[in-house]
Amino acid sequence: MEPGPTQRVWRLAAHPTGLPTTATWTLETVPVPQPRAGEILARALYLDVAPYMRGRISPQKNYAAGVKPGDVMIGGGIGVVLESQARGIAAGDCVVSDFAFGWREYAVLKAQAVRRIDRALAPLPYWMEALGLNGLTAYFALYDCAAARPGDTVVISAAAGSVGQLAGQLARIAGCRVIGVTSRAEKAAWCRAIGYDDVLAYRDEPDLTAALARICPQGVDVFIDNTAGAIHDAVLQQLAPQARIALVGAVSLAARFGEPDLGPRYLRQLLIARATMRGFLVSDYQDRYEVARSRLAAWVKSGQLRSRFDILDGFERLPEAFLRLLASRNTGKQLVRVAPEPPAADAGAMQIQ
Amino acid sequence: MEPGPTQRVWRLAAHPTGLPTTATWTLETVPVPQPRAGEILARALYLDVAPYMRGRISPQKNYAAGVKPGDVMIGGGIGVVLESQARGIAAGDCVVSDFAFGWREYAVLKAQAVRRIDRALAPLPYWMEALGLNGLTAYFALYDCAAARPGDTVVISAAAGSVGQLAGQLARIAGCRVIGVTSRAEKAAWCRAIGYDDVLAYRDEPDLTAALARICPQGVDVFIDNTAGAIHDAVLQQLAPQARIALVGAVSLAARFGEPDLGPRYLRQLLIARATMRGFLVSDYQDRYEVARSRLAAWVKSGQLRSRFDILDGFERLPEAFLRLLASRNTGKQLVRVAPEPPAADAGAMQIQ
Repeated sequence: MEPGPTQRVWRLAAHPTGLPTTATWTLETVPVPQPRAGEILARALYLDVAPYMRGRISPQKNYAAGVKPGDVMIGGGIGVVLESQARGIAAGDCVVSDFAFGWREYAVLKAQAVRRIDRALAPLPYWMEALGLNGLTAYFALYDCAAARPGDTVVISAAAGSVGQLAGQLARIAGCRVIGVTSRAEKAAWCRAIGYDDVLAYRDEPDLTAALARICPQGVDVFIDNTAGAIHDAVLQQLAPQARIALVGAVSLAARFGEPDLGPRYLRQLLIARATMRGFLVSDYQDRYEVARSRLAAWVKSGQLRSRFDILDGFERLPEAFLRLLASRNTGKQLVRVAPEPPAADAGAMQIQ
Repeated sequence: MEPGPTQRVWRLAAHPTGLPTTATWTLETVPVPQPRAGEILARALYLDVAPYMRGRISPQKNYAAGVKPGDVMIGGGIGVVLESQARGIAAGDCVVSDFAFGWREYAVLKAQAVRRIDRALAPLPYWMEALGLNGLTAYFALYDCAAARPGDTVVISAAAGSVGQLAGQLARIAGCRVIGVTSRAEKAAWCRAIGYDDVLAYRDEPDLTAALARICPQGVDVFIDNTAGAIHDAVLQQLAPQARIALVGAVSLAARFGEPDLGPRYLRQLLIARATMRGFLVSDYQDRYEVARSRLAAWVKSGQLRSRFDILDGFERLPEAFLRLLASRNTGKQLVRVAPEPPAADAGAMQIQ
């Protein structure tokens, strides 16, 4: 019997302590599975790496099921359909999955786990960014969880990152004054290019608290916190009355994951400002994704929402791409290109390679 | 010229660092002032001490103007009117002021700064408690800020204190399961007597976090935080999804006021639970006081809302009463009785003594 086609997958080798390393995953070769009724077989074009994955590979309790050693690494991806047993999806279609693709070259996915991509609406990478979970996160964190209003001073940490760059532009669209906090001058320049009113590059700031006080003399009304840590601490000392803080991510804690995060607590500051600090998880807003996505698509189309991508080539570079992200070395949304984009016209002729 | 009548007042001597002491205030004798048009002269019957006063005597930025050295100490009080130049208030009426009475034996107050007391509705001390700021704080913190719902597991710190004992009973009225955290077994017994479902006396608990996990196996939905500190830390590790935390007070930090409060931060726990932590200040709800007070009065009348008071006798004991409170040595709402209650019938005959 002739052996079937094979593919590479990244499996979790062990729960990391502190920062993951390239040894946290192992590369294996396994058969390409066959789709059954209601399923599709897709070839990966772009695979996602994102800060939330640090929580998923930890043994600690989290908001969603974790990845166990031996499991294929979870993650979103954009693929081209090679074979479809599902109504409404055809070979040649491009599809996106927020979480279910996994770090593998080929995936069999249930039709409900993917969305068909309209390539005329936006280039493929945007479907993992402005039109994907990053855009939805920025949209709901800013407009709903933190309830940004015209005239608010909005501070965004990881301001040049995947969620940050979108949140900054969405805050401008909402009539806010937008302050970004990012790591380096090069990223600060990108923030200014997309419309941030002011940007702090924290690696160049000897006193972040003082710098923030200087550029937010009336205090901070809204804080989209993608990092926790030192930036959080600086902002919590500058809260305007009735400030709203959306806790979206805690990437600065990735190296000490599972350890207690020790430092000053700001309960009195929250009390005095009558501020609201709220943990945010985009999946709580699932029933409103479609409205949000149509608005995000319109802003992408009009040019009001621009994104920068940082794309590494090669399936084997997935762990490296993830570590880049945790170290804040990426510039823009980090993705890994696994295969070249098929031309829109003859994508139907694609085969397992 | 004959000297006019005199009275004693407590003035702030100096901003304390850490816990105040009896030397934080000085007792002085000053003239009793005369009311002008729109004002009343009242003799103090009960004067208030409350945790919020620690913030007011600090030089740090706060939500309200602070007391400066040399100022008469602020504070609420219940008094009997000796002379009225204000329409709608007559000599012999009892009145209550939430903040403006001050630590003095006689006060001239603007009519708008006081409310007339209906002594048939509730005994005088209740007007500084269930029908005063404590009742309003418990009501709005629980029902509005933390949005307690039937079936919620509600944890209340300083559970036998002035706000705590009311919040516990209001949570029962709202159909919640109520857990109190208090300092000592004697206070825990009072909490049980007024309907708390379970109580932890933290001075007897070697591991508060474990004890709380044991009695809240489904997690904590609502936390009315009157203390900050170790109790806060224990609850933040037991949050149920969508938990709401009202930061009402931080009395455990009184000894280290102005210093950074160092310890574990729980941003990741808030994020995972999608919890909401909100600073609470009762004065933000002023436009709804009357509705709340009428409901509180009905529950007092029906016996659904009971209060325990800890009343020291003697104007000279105000600093001592405040320090008792900060050290959690009081049992129930701490007040100081300055003069005996006048009989309801002939209070009109009262004079400056």
